[in-house]
Amino acid sequence: MKGEFALIEDFVAAFPRGRGELALGVGDDCAILRPRAGEELLLTTDAVVERVHFTRDFSPEEIGHKALAVNLSDLAAMGARPVAFLCALAFPPQWARALPRIAKGMSKLAKAHRCQLAGGNMSRARELSLTITAIGAAPTGTSLRRSGARVGDRLLVSGALGGAAAGLRSASRPLRIRQRLPEPRIRLGQLARPHAHAAIDISDGLIQDLGHVLELSRVGAELALDRVPVARGATLDDALSGGEDYELLLCVPPGRVPVLQRGARALGLPLTDVGGIVRGRGIRGLEGRRPAGHDHFR
Amino acid sequence: MKGEFALIEDFVAAFPRGRGELALGVGDDCAILRPRAGEELLLTTDAVVERVHFTRDFSPEEIGHKALAVNLSDLAAMGARPVAFLCALAFPPQWARALPRIAKGMSKLAKAHRCQLAGGNMSRARELSLTITAIGAAPTGTSLRRSGARVGDRLLVSGALGGAAAGLRSASRPLRIRQRLPEPRIRLGQLARPHAHAAIDISDGLIQDLGHVLELSRVGAELALDRVPVARGATLDDALSGGEDYELLLCVPPGRVPVLQRGARALGLPLTDVGGIVRGRGIRGLEGRRPAGHDHFR
Repeated sequence: MKGEFALIEDFVAAFPRGRGELALGVGDDCAILRPRAGEELLLTTDAVVERVHFTRDFSPEEIGHKALAVNLSDLAAMGARPVAFLCALAFPPQWARALPRIAKGMSKLAKAHRCQLAGGNMSRARELSLTITAIGAAPTGTSLRRSGARVGDRLLVSGALGGAAAGLRSASRPLRIRQRLPEPRIRLGQLARPHAHAAIDISDGLIQDLGHVLELSRVGAELALDRVPVARGATLDDALSGGEDYELLLCVPPGRVPVLQRGARALGLPLTDVGGIVRGRGIRGLEGRRPAGHDHFR
Repeated sequence: MKGEFALIEDFVAAFPRGRGELALGVGDDCAILRPRAGEELLLTTDAVVERVHFTRDFSPEEIGHKALAVNLSDLAAMGARPVAFLCALAFPPQWARALPRIAKGMSKLAKAHRCQLAGGNMSRARELSLTITAIGAAPTGTSLRRSGARVGDRLLVSGALGGAAAGLRSASRPLRIRQRLPEPRIRLGQLARPHAHAAIDISDGLIQDLGHVLELSRVGAELALDRVPVARGATLDDALSGGEDYELLLCVPPGRVPVLQRGARALGLPLTDVGGIVRGRGIRGLEGRRPAGHDHFR
């Protein structure tokens, strides 16, 4: 097995060198980021762990993609432009050979969103895990928060839900790809930023993530279950509480819905109206359903 | 065992709420950081893993301290002011009860350096690991890099070296504390920023870390082994290649050495002249010693 420095060198080689805002990339004690004037930075961290977030049949490229994608999805939910990310890898020796392929999958997604590798770390461990911290930017004061939903807003969901959960138990290739290669909705998030009052990415299931928005916004919601866009091969329960879809849930004033739907259509991404924000607390229209949502610890 | 959200809530409760530059702290898809005008940001990530970076006899508070300290040490090496950090925890169920104590140790150090918790993540895993990404700030263009050493610079080392390595095999409490509770040299780094040409934190041993500076600065060094400050209870080999001391190595023009040494003395931290930067490559004065340095994979 190669030594630590050779492994790091090989991994880093898959990514372009720092440029633009990233005044100094990998190789020093820290990277140096020079923020653009008038922008605020968005910070998020998320880990993927062997057997929890990916299984034996994921390819190394898919693991690399997913680790970055779940972080970029958080940037998308705030309407941010991706800027840079740091990647800490922990792994047992047998994974060392797969690192260049992990880097390849990660690098392809990073390039697609102009997100630069700014640093990393490698540690020995008993199982493979990748912990990424992603940094995005948006004009100061414009980032979409969970707490901004207002009574009267329409609830819009991108794409279709439940596909990832269905992919977990399916042999169908298109469904499995939804589970393994989630596409962060970066362009949709940026498109929605001037129009939406609030947003969240649907990582734990529609019910649970909508619940976070309602709690922080101190409002309720009326959900139309018959309008929830269910992915082909998935059930309504998958769509409501399956998790890992990484679509966006947007709270949008009614007057802005048409322009946003037109823009989303141009991105090839349907935006479905699944209900609205109402006074009070909690979700109406569930007809007794209380899906558990996604909890890694239960 | 508590659910994911309750565990996160308990952990976060140990830290003050976001303020100042941190416009939005924990609880949304991302945190929001509003950089001060005229400053660049420093980014670094580092993980500590059970049995690799800490042993069974570390207290949870010590684990929390060390995870943050190794990251703050990287900020110190660039002369940065700590701003914020994100913490991803991965752990098996039996560690859940220890999380509040881990948070306590981490929070104490974070408060001492005014470094705010900006986000986090919790995952199931087979062993405990903490991956932290730290963000610092410095006036644009002033951060200390490894690549700035110039011929004629003096090599200054803070504190004493080898204590952490000696602590690993010792029952002496003061020595063990050096290994478990490394103190990031934040104030020294900021003090050195206007004076030093280059800096690095000594995490892998003096020889190896000096080697990084020489390589990136394309210079050589003359080391005076008899002047290397060896910690009580440690050997010269511990000091040269033991690792985990988290002291700073500074490359300073001779005219700036006295003012820097006076300032360091006021911090209660000796700065020892252990040699100088010379033309050429590599380290002279090792008299055949080629300590291996620290490699987590060999």
